[in-house]
Amino acid sequence: MEVTRKNYKDCLNTVYSAIEEADFLAIDGEFSGISDGPNVSALTNGLDTPEERYTKLKKHSMDFLLFQFGLCTFKYDQAKSKYITKPFNFYIFPKPFNRTSPDIKFICQSSSIDFLASQGFDFNKVFCHGIPYLNQEEEAQLREQTEERRNQHANAASNPNFCFHHVNFILFLLLLSRFQRKLIYQTLNWKFPKGLHVETVETEKKERYIQISKVDEEERKRREQQKLEKEQEELNDAVGFSRVIHAISKSGKLVVGHNMLLDVMHTIHQFYCPLPEDIQDFKEVTMCVFPRLLDTKLMASTQPFKELITNTSLAELEKQLKESPFKSPQVETAEGFPSYDTAQEQLHEAGYDAYITGLCFIAMANYLGSFLTPPKAYISARSKLIEPFFNKLFLMRIIDIPYLNITGPDLQPKRDHVLYVTFPKEWKTSDLYQLFSAFGNIQVSWIDDTSAFVSLSQTDQVQIAMNTSRYAESYKIQTYAEYIQGKQQEKEKQTTKTWGEDSWVKPHYTCSTTSAFGYSRKRSISPMQGEQGADDAQITDGWSHYSYPDTTGTKKMKTDGV
Amino acid sequence: MEVTRKNYKDCLNTVYSAIEEADFLAIDGEFSGISDGPNVSALTNGLDTPEERYTKLKKHSMDFLLFQFGLCTFKYDQAKSKYITKPFNFYIFPKPFNRTSPDIKFICQSSSIDFLASQGFDFNKVFCHGIPYLNQEEEAQLREQTEERRNQHANAASNPNFCFHHVNFILFLLLLSRFQRKLIYQTLNWKFPKGLHVETVETEKKERYIQISKVDEEERKRREQQKLEKEQEELNDAVGFSRVIHAISKSGKLVVGHNMLLDVMHTIHQFYCPLPEDIQDFKEVTMCVFPRLLDTKLMASTQPFKELITNTSLAELEKQLKESPFKSPQVETAEGFPSYDTAQEQLHEAGYDAYITGLCFIAMANYLGSFLTPPKAYISARSKLIEPFFNKLFLMRIIDIPYLNITGPDLQPKRDHVLYVTFPKEWKTSDLYQLFSAFGNIQVSWIDDTSAFVSLSQTDQVQIAMNTSRYAESYKIQTYAEYIQGKQQEKEKQTTKTWGEDSWVKPHYTCSTTSAFGYSRKRSISPMQGEQGADDAQITDGWSHYSYPDTTGTKKMKTDGV
Repeated sequence: MEVTRKNYKDCLNTVYSAIEEADFLAIDGEFSGISDGPNVSALTNGLDTPEERYTKLKKHSMDFLLFQFGLCTFKYDQAKSKYITKPFNFYIFPKPFNRTSPDIKFICQSSSIDFLASQGFDFNKVFCHGIPYLNQEEEAQLREQTEERRNQHANAASNPNFCFHHVNFILFLLLLSRFQRKLIYQTLNWKFPKGLHVETVETEKKERYIQISKVDEEERKRREQQKLEKEQEELNDAVGFSRVIHAISKSGKLVVGHNMLLDVMHTIHQFYCPLPEDIQDFKEVTMCVFPRLLDTKLMASTQPFKELITNTSLAELEKQLKESPFKSPQVETAEGFPSYDTAQEQLHEAGYDAYITGLCFIAMANYLGSFLTPPKAYISARSKLIEPFFNKLFLMRIIDIPYLNITGPDLQPKRDHVLYVTFPKEWKTSDLYQLFSAFGNIQVSWIDDTSAFVSLSQTDQVQIAMNTSRYAESYKIQTYAEYIQGKQQEKEKQTTKTWGEDSWVKPHYTCSTTSAFGYSRKRSISPMQGEQGADDAQITDGWSHYSYPDTTGTKKMKTDGV
Repeated sequence: MEVTRKNYKDCLNTVYSAIEEADFLAIDGEFSGISDGPNVSALTNGLDTPEERYTKLKKHSMDFLLFQFGLCTFKYDQAKSKYITKPFNFYIFPKPFNRTSPDIKFICQSSSIDFLASQGFDFNKVFCHGIPYLNQEEEAQLREQTEERRNQHANAASNPNFCFHHVNFILFLLLLSRFQRKLIYQTLNWKFPKGLHVETVETEKKERYIQISKVDEEERKRREQQKLEKEQEELNDAVGFSRVIHAISKSGKLVVGHNMLLDVMHTIHQFYCPLPEDIQDFKEVTMCVFPRLLDTKLMASTQPFKELITNTSLAELEKQLKESPFKSPQVETAEGFPSYDTAQEQLHEAGYDAYITGLCFIAMANYLGSFLTPPKAYISARSKLIEPFFNKLFLMRIIDIPYLNITGPDLQPKRDHVLYVTFPKEWKTSDLYQLFSAFGNIQVSWIDDTSAFVSLSQTDQVQIAMNTSRYAESYKIQTYAEYIQGKQQEKEKQTTKTWGEDSWVKPHYTCSTTSAFGYSRKRSISPMQGEQGADDAQITDGWSHYSYPDTTGTKKMKTDGV
């Protein structure tokens, strides 16, 4: 279902109930660009730490706009033994709410725009009919402003000094400036708090008048109530698409995505809050917004799937999961929703990509059921079998760390065969090969113009290389441990400085969300405790029968495209 | 005429001949945003110097994309006594030329995009079918690369060590990497420089093959020639829309725009070269690219028009110039061009805005003819009467400097009644009014959070204010002269530093343009000398009869919208 500013309000309840009834949700985002850095490969060093990668993505990718959001809900129908899907394709655009609201600037990357154009992406739908949104702070500010305006009215009404005159007219004043309108409003509300209804009306020619009409007490109250409701509605309209994200968040449902780190980062950045500096804080925020995540690219790159799947790009994964030993999942599009045909690829429409991602998840989850005794053909989204894949987001092109672990410490692979080398900016890869020619096979991971990681094939060569370089003048070698230590010290120096300036208060992220349903709540960091589905109770024994996914020691990750 | 990537090549000759035959050209650009600064008013201080304004616009406006370019050519038909117009509306987009070409990033400003959307702007036409472009340096690089590739082929062919084998096959090799293809190319060219034709072909499935076929000498030469022509065509395609700008530039024709400073800056920045730091260098570049400019907003704000025209926004100007004492110009759209109807406003389509701008220029130019004895109803674009308006670009919202003078020094109005005040960031305008309450009327021009210009009504108050402030702690007052001196010293310090680092070479802009017609040329800084139209010779006497436009001392400029 295509959702734009035009049909958004009519669709909202359909979206809410689809989320509410779903067993799991799949999401996907389309962006106006990927990276504003010099080139993508410089941004994805094969030996990045998760922290470095996060910092790079935050710095170079967050100024793009997430302008299409795909949501596909999946609800298992026991009677039909199939999933019923409800796909939504939202167009998003930060149309300024009024003259004082933020005027968002975003970057477009020509190659990304050109790619989307070649896929038939409809930019007019985004820019002319995209749904607006506010992040939490902007929403709070707007609520505050509205509240303040109301209080001013209320105060004026309770002012004991007013004098009441009977006025027997309806008056229209054409006012040129906002200041003049404000002045009239204040004076009238103060002088005639109960006998007059004052309202700004706009003609077709966009001329603004103040309409002053004499009303009795009951009518006045009715109109005040109307005004209040209108204000509330305008506020909700401004919060716009963020309400969908709030609803997803509040549902606590499993959210599935493919190579979803950027989707998660953009969603939080655009609809919740600017991303925190520290990766630990980012993990906390993520758990608040998306308490249960699953990345199908990470799942497909992990045991038992990695041996069976040669290409984990979404299109290829979907194809391979139709073949043995996997089974195409049984799905049906809910009535009233246009159904997608996987034979006719519509890749890179966010709604379709979300749908395909959901299919991939189902096929892989069900495959895990074949390891049980007796085998099961259907594995629910609440099954213990898929828990090992929760909250681990695929990290592109990192040699020895397959994922970012949202709910715990990240993997710290031994990198004691790695050297950090700095050199003049004229050096090329061949210079590095020559420098280390005595050590056999090496692997070079460029950091920037004047530095790179060099991985030696054997750890015991490290000390020899270090000794050889001691008197070198044009280049410098450090062990990986020394490099990390240096970075850590640099960071500590900076943190101390920042804390000193900002009165020693470190932000702490709690999950109090003013949700789409109008109340606040706190969410625990481990949202899954005590929420396991009863339908999986019997398979706990079966657990030991299939080889537990090896997500901790995967050394060779596939580095193909998304 | 709408021009996109699809019909661009077919239209190019029509565009060239329209420019070639025209008496003058009108242009207009539409951008993806206006200012990426905190707010537009901070960018347009009423007491900016032209240099400061240029620096601000360069810093805060050049990262937007000029994505629609309007060109309307006007040719006077003596027989019909009317202008024949040819309007073009070009859609522009920096589609990457190939995998190694620059991947341009540009900023979009929500309010600007939303405004264009509300005017029916077609973003799909821009992003899906926009014409690509290269600036001068990118074009030179691409030419160099192509040249280098050709030389490699030629060198391989003249290599005396080759051995010639007869090969009786046509071979197709499916090659996975660019590196492999390059290797094969080099080897084959070197081994079989004359007997083989080697070409990369791409199948419908985007698989790349190398096709090797045995050919005789004549056929080989024919194919080489074909290849050369294809390369040249691809190069021209990549230069794309810049060729239109080159043609405009090369024509030396009068180019008319409305409030055109940003149009000129964007055009140079996007299609010629990054804008220079120094405003003097900018003026030099501008004279190279557009040797004769006229800004209708500046013209309408100057004697004798400023007394007659109350609102100089394009739409209002066009309306007022239809009324007495002005006369609607007689124009006719050339055959084959869709005609615009000024009754049905299509403002903010660049082609239409260019057309309207041209009409405004004609109406104002003809009005000048009424001052002649005998009066003339038609004044040509080469008339001496309009020369006073040449090369003066309107400066928005500067109190006492109406224009940027491209061909000479800028006006230096006395600002000895102006104070430069710095204060704590909590201060508001009311605090400044209070501080200067003893001095009667003041005018405040905010610079940033902690500084503003305060104009006193009388110059002799300045010394009193300075004396009063001597022992103030929370704020500081400088005269305008002191402020300018401080900035100048700051700049000199910086310049010395830059020159020191960059080996004392200051760039000098010459007008050597590799033009669309394939040759280079130099253009003098005063392109109008000796080019005056003979048809105006007789009116030199009439000159003294009408009041010479006062463009030097205009104190009160209109500050309404564009």
